[in-house]
Amino acid sequence: MSKIAQTPDPPYYAVIFTSLHSDDLDGYAATAERMLELAAGQPGYLGVESARRELGITVSYWRDLESIKRWKSHAEHREAKRQGKGRWYRNYCTRIALVERDYGNTRDK
Amino acid sequence: MSKIAQTPDPPYYAVIFTSLHSDDLDGYAATAERMLELAAGQPGYLGVESARRELGITVSYWRDLESIKRWKSHAEHREAKRQGKGRWYRNYCTRIALVERDYGNTRDK
Repeated sequence: MSKIAQTPDPPYYAVIFTSLHSDDLDGYAATAERMLELAAGQPGYLGVESARRELGITVSYWRDLESIKRWKSHAEHREAKRQGKGRWYRNYCTRIALVERDYGNTRDK
Repeated sequence: MSKIAQTPDPPYYAVIFTSLHSDDLDGYAATAERMLELAAGQPGYLGVESARRELGITVSYWRDLESIKRWKSHAEHREAKRQGKGRWYRNYCTRIALVERDYGNTRDK
């Protein structure tokens, strides 16, 4: 989680998940960790980046919309999202975005 | 910076900037704050979300590629980026992405 994702050349997809926590974080950390682990094993998964201060931002990268759709409908993921919406998040937004270009120095290292 | 951006209905663009700091952060905080202020006044700017733990993620939202290009070439922004690359960041990646869909409960609040 402390690395910049090593994604392939565009195009590929980004799922930008932005959230504000509620006061009830019981069970959150273990589930969040489990979801990262589970996502990493899905077909089409390319990487993830995550940070939080007050606002949390998790960006996961995927080969195509089909991969995102499959992960979205994964049973354990659906259950985690249900708990997230009901307990852990007081506000959130998910954005599905097609990465058209990227640049930086990540592929040099 | 502690709010989820209130963006309009898609399509719009996201610039996902991910970075790892170097040990030299002299002048960084003031410049980062100034850039957020300056970006917010640019044509086509829709909002920004930012978080950092070890990894920093800043996602800014824009109406179109033209707005992003204009902001990218802004003189003061270019100078800030030059300093960022030379001093404040040991690694970074910028991704330009077209937001095709978004959902969540942000527009209810």
